[in-house]
Amino acid sequence: MDQRHDRIKLTALQERVATAEQAASWIKDGMAIGFSGFTRAGDAKAVPNALAKRGEKESLKIDVYTGASLGSGTDGRFAQAGIVQKRAPYQSDSLMRAAINSGEVQFVDHHLSQTAEWVRGGVAGPLDFAIIEALGITEEGLLIPTTSVGNSAVFALHAKELIIEINTAQPAEMEGIHDCFEPGALGKRQPIPLVSPRDRIGTKGIPIDVSKVKGIVWTHQVDSPSPIEPPDKETEVMAGHLLNFLRGEVEAGRLDQNLAPLQSGVGSVANAVLHGLLDSEFEGLELYSEVLQDAVFDLLDSGKALFASASAITLSKPYMERIYQDFGRYRDRLVLRPQEISNHPEIIRRLGLISINTALEFDLYGNVNSTHVAGTRMMNGIGGSGDFGRNAQLAIFVTKSTAKDGRISCVVPFASHIDHTEHDVDVLVTEYGFADIRNLAPRERAERIIANCVHPDYRSQLQGYFDRAIAQGGHTPHVLDEALSWHARYTRTGTMLKNST
Amino acid sequence: MDQRHDRIKLTALQERVATAEQAASWIKDGMAIGFSGFTRAGDAKAVPNALAKRGEKESLKIDVYTGASLGSGTDGRFAQAGIVQKRAPYQSDSLMRAAINSGEVQFVDHHLSQTAEWVRGGVAGPLDFAIIEALGITEEGLLIPTTSVGNSAVFALHAKELIIEINTAQPAEMEGIHDCFEPGALGKRQPIPLVSPRDRIGTKGIPIDVSKVKGIVWTHQVDSPSPIEPPDKETEVMAGHLLNFLRGEVEAGRLDQNLAPLQSGVGSVANAVLHGLLDSEFEGLELYSEVLQDAVFDLLDSGKALFASASAITLSKPYMERIYQDFGRYRDRLVLRPQEISNHPEIIRRLGLISINTALEFDLYGNVNSTHVAGTRMMNGIGGSGDFGRNAQLAIFVTKSTAKDGRISCVVPFASHIDHTEHDVDVLVTEYGFADIRNLAPRERAERIIANCVHPDYRSQLQGYFDRAIAQGGHTPHVLDEALSWHARYTRTGTMLKNST
Ligand SMILES: CC(C)(COP(=O)(O)OP(=O)(O)OC[C@H]1O[C@@H](n2cnc3c(N)ncnc32)[C@H](O)[C@@H]1OP(=O)(O)O)[C@@H](O)C(=O)NCCC(=O)NCCS
Ligand SMILES: CC(C)(COP(=O)(O)OP(=O)(O)OC[C@H]1O[C@@H](n2cnc3c(N)ncnc32)[C@H](O)[C@@H]1OP(=O)(O)O)[C@@H](O)C(=O)NCCC(=O)NCCS
Repeated sequence: MDQRHDRIKLTALQERVATAEQAASWIKDGMAIGFSGFTRAGDAKAVPNALAKRGEKESLKIDVYTGASLGSGTDGRFAQAGIVQKRAPYQSDSLMRAAINSGEVQFVDHHLSQTAEWVRGGVAGPLDFAIIEALGITEEGLLIPTTSVGNSAVFALHAKELIIEINTAQPAEMEGIHDCFEPGALGKRQPIPLVSPRDRIGTKGIPIDVSKVKGIVWTHQVDSPSPIEPPDKETEVMAGHLLNFLRGEVEAGRLDQNLAPLQSGVGSVANAVLHGLLDSEFEGLELYSEVLQDAVFDLLDSGKALFASASAITLSKPYMERIYQDFGRYRDRLVLRPQEISNHPEIIRRLGLISINTALEFDLYGNVNSTHVAGTRMMNGIGGSGDFGRNAQLAIFVTKSTAKDGRISCVVPFASHIDHTEHDVDVLVTEYGFADIRNLAPRERAERIIANCVHPDYRSQLQGYFDRAIAQGGHTPHVLDEALSWHARYTRTGTMLKNST
Repeated sequence: MDQRHDRIKLTALQERVATAEQAASWIKDGMAIGFSGFTRAGDAKAVPNALAKRGEKESLKIDVYTGASLGSGTDGRFAQAGIVQKRAPYQSDSLMRAAINSGEVQFVDHHLSQTAEWVRGGVAGPLDFAIIEALGITEEGLLIPTTSVGNSAVFALHAKELIIEINTAQPAEMEGIHDCFEPGALGKRQPIPLVSPRDRIGTKGIPIDVSKVKGIVWTHQVDSPSPIEPPDKETEVMAGHLLNFLRGEVEAGRLDQNLAPLQSGVGSVANAVLHGLLDSEFEGLELYSEVLQDAVFDLLDSGKALFASASAITLSKPYMERIYQDFGRYRDRLVLRPQEISNHPEIIRRLGLISINTALEFDLYGNVNSTHVAGTRMMNGIGGSGDFGRNAQLAIFVTKSTAKDGRISCVVPFASHIDHTEHDVDVLVTEYGFADIRNLAPRERAERIIANCVHPDYRSQLQGYFDRAIAQGGHTPHVLDEALSWHARYTRTGTMLKNST
């Protein structure tokens, strides 16, 4: 018997082992599939790879639901093979992005907490297959996830059939860190009994209906590392501004020295800003986040952070090697949950989170764009930023003040796409400072944003817009003909700067 | 002894009776005041009136926090007297609106569920006074609210001093319909134990600290009636479309015959649409709303609706006379809660609400504007529409397809202000039909919205925009130079129609 069979403790399932190619052949044109995977972590690898190969040769279209972005080149290969009809809810691959922006792939950019409700409620799907990576399957029929839980539990419950990939390259010591909880149907559920990031409220794996398991595939392949950049001078300065804001909150008696549970978004900037807490006076920190990036492990190592809850762990290559070699060290200080729990409005509000996410741009009045370049071209997706921003105690958005060597100002007259409205945004941070816009009227917000956030090269240009807008009046003054002109100018001339010669 | 003293069962308080003028004289320049009142219901009347009079004669500026809009002409008189520095979180008075749009009043347009968190957390305030209308005060020191609960509980808890207006014109039979619950500090609270609109989880009145009561004022004055218009032909047609959508959901197995708890927003359109349920096949309905307007009482009378939970009751004049004459009939089928509970994300998500609110306009991709005329001039405020829209099972927005005799299209290329993002909006309804945009990519949504919602006079104009936008590409195609041109044209020429001669 294959030694790997210890990973399948439920003997009835041992005979369902199949090759990736066999499993891929079960997928039919027009099917809707739920894949495990969240920000490149814990994605099924072998079957998607075989499916992409099939797609290169035959005509095949499927709907692809995931937790968030897939790793292992899967999104890119799917896009290249042209097999994706619909894609939800988040991706970060350049080829997939191109297919979305050309209109070839129908991308549904949805809050990460809500896809589960749509699957449960019959709005998305029905799912023909769920394809889920696992560490193994217990005697009781629990599927033990790997580096992410994502939407795997709800996919497994609602898909007609299951394909499980047991990945022997994932750290076996992860068994026990997952906490799977099914809230039940809307309108028939009880309160979610979670009142601290440390609470465990479910089972250590995903309960599966054994009769639905169509096949089990072996893989041995690590997650794709995260491409985040290490902190740089600018992000250090931004972290400094954020710390100053937090200090002010402690001084004002609105936060304690150990702050409140922290959420920090994907990407280099959010990671770098979180990293800034390492050298701060804050202690006894807890995280209630959706993805844990490098900085969280530095905070755990230093003792600054005591506990971290999320739906996935996504690390850069050096961190991956270090952390997964010795994962036992972190076991008792981590829990991974379904993304509908990590991102649940009920919990985010109850815990009073401090939420820090990266914006592409924001405007004079505090509206934030997280997704669309120049209002039209999708970058990655809203991810969990809306789940957190709209329900957190503090919704903080960070961005460098400019992009593309200063040719783009990330502070604009009118956000060219709005993912987080003025009603939901509390604090904005760039390398020039922070603007605390809580409890301010739009004109007051604009003054603070111009004074504290915009890059000096764009300051007088933005002030000029604001002055002309005020002359026209209104609660939220705008010059409608000019509101989107910065983006139009960039598209036309390659820079948002006026009269740049 | 004044007979009215039976209303003050706590004898220690009986000697604190004051005149409205005395009470108004305690308010000092620069103070922040929390007033009871929610969509014209249950507002303090006499002291604000005396305060406005004072403001006409002397220089005085205060910050005004409420539940939502005030009745009794208060917002208008405050604006006219020029005594308001900051105003939050909702208003609907034409004079106050003008003062907001001129920049004279700093209006903070905030989700109705969140003001309480800001007062509790020290972001708004500190409040110097709370001025709260009551039916009376019990022996145990509970203040019994009247036709709304609003933010009164959190104002009473956190204000330094209290002024209570006992209004003997409000129906005394209301005692017992309130359910006051204090969730406690963020990060230190338990789940809110409410799993059905009928649940009572708190006390029948607001517990007050007797030592903070500075004065009690007698009033005898009914609430201002709601100015809503009765249903008309167009709103009947819109209600028909909504019913068809709901029927489709029942057929698809996504809803039961008794639907899910309903929330319906302020205004004539939302009221009329709710009224449409009267002649439908749906039964056993429940409401979990923030304000109960006329239609709810017709639904209760007919037996279609069995129970209604909200934060306020706001009726037109004829309904007010009828309902309050015989309020005992409704007592067991109603509960009024603090607005942070009626609008709480935790509860809205748990109950799986169907939420119906009125939009000013929406765009091709499903972004909704509830607040700003032509992107700049505040109408009323976001109210609870964001609380409900973003957490409900179904976020439905309704509007007539045009306004101002067809000179404004309420379906536009790019919403001129965004209160509800494309990520949060599920269904759009005009008198031409409904567009169910769930689980659709932006281009798919645009096709449905053009086909089903836009007024025929604007259809080819909108299709033309979409075609030109698609030619430029992108996930969410736009022609940036044209995106806001409809609004600019209206501002310039008085109509959004192109080449209208
Ligand atoms: C916004 C987001 C793309 C930023 O990513 P990041 O890695 O932290 O930030 P960077 O500054 O490196 O920017 C990424 C790219 O966007 C570009 N960019 C930044 N601001 C831009 C703007 N206003 N206009 C156009 N491009 C912009 C950068 O130049 C960079 O381009 P490159 O990849 O060609 O170098 C990313 O955080 C995201 O997708 N967020 C949305 C989802 C989310 O917030 N989830 C949170 C919960 S997990
Ligand atoms: C949007 C809202 C103003 C509509 O109110 P309503 O009474 O149902 O609708 P009406 O069609 O009568 O419109 C009200 C006014 O707005 C005008 N209007 C409507 N659409 C417009 C648009 N796109 N541009 C400019 N004006 C518009 C109407 O012409 C009318 O003007 P009038 O007062 O001069 O006659 C109102 O519902 C609101 O304030 N909503 C936001 C708060 C909310 O949704 N709360 C929900 C939870 S309670």
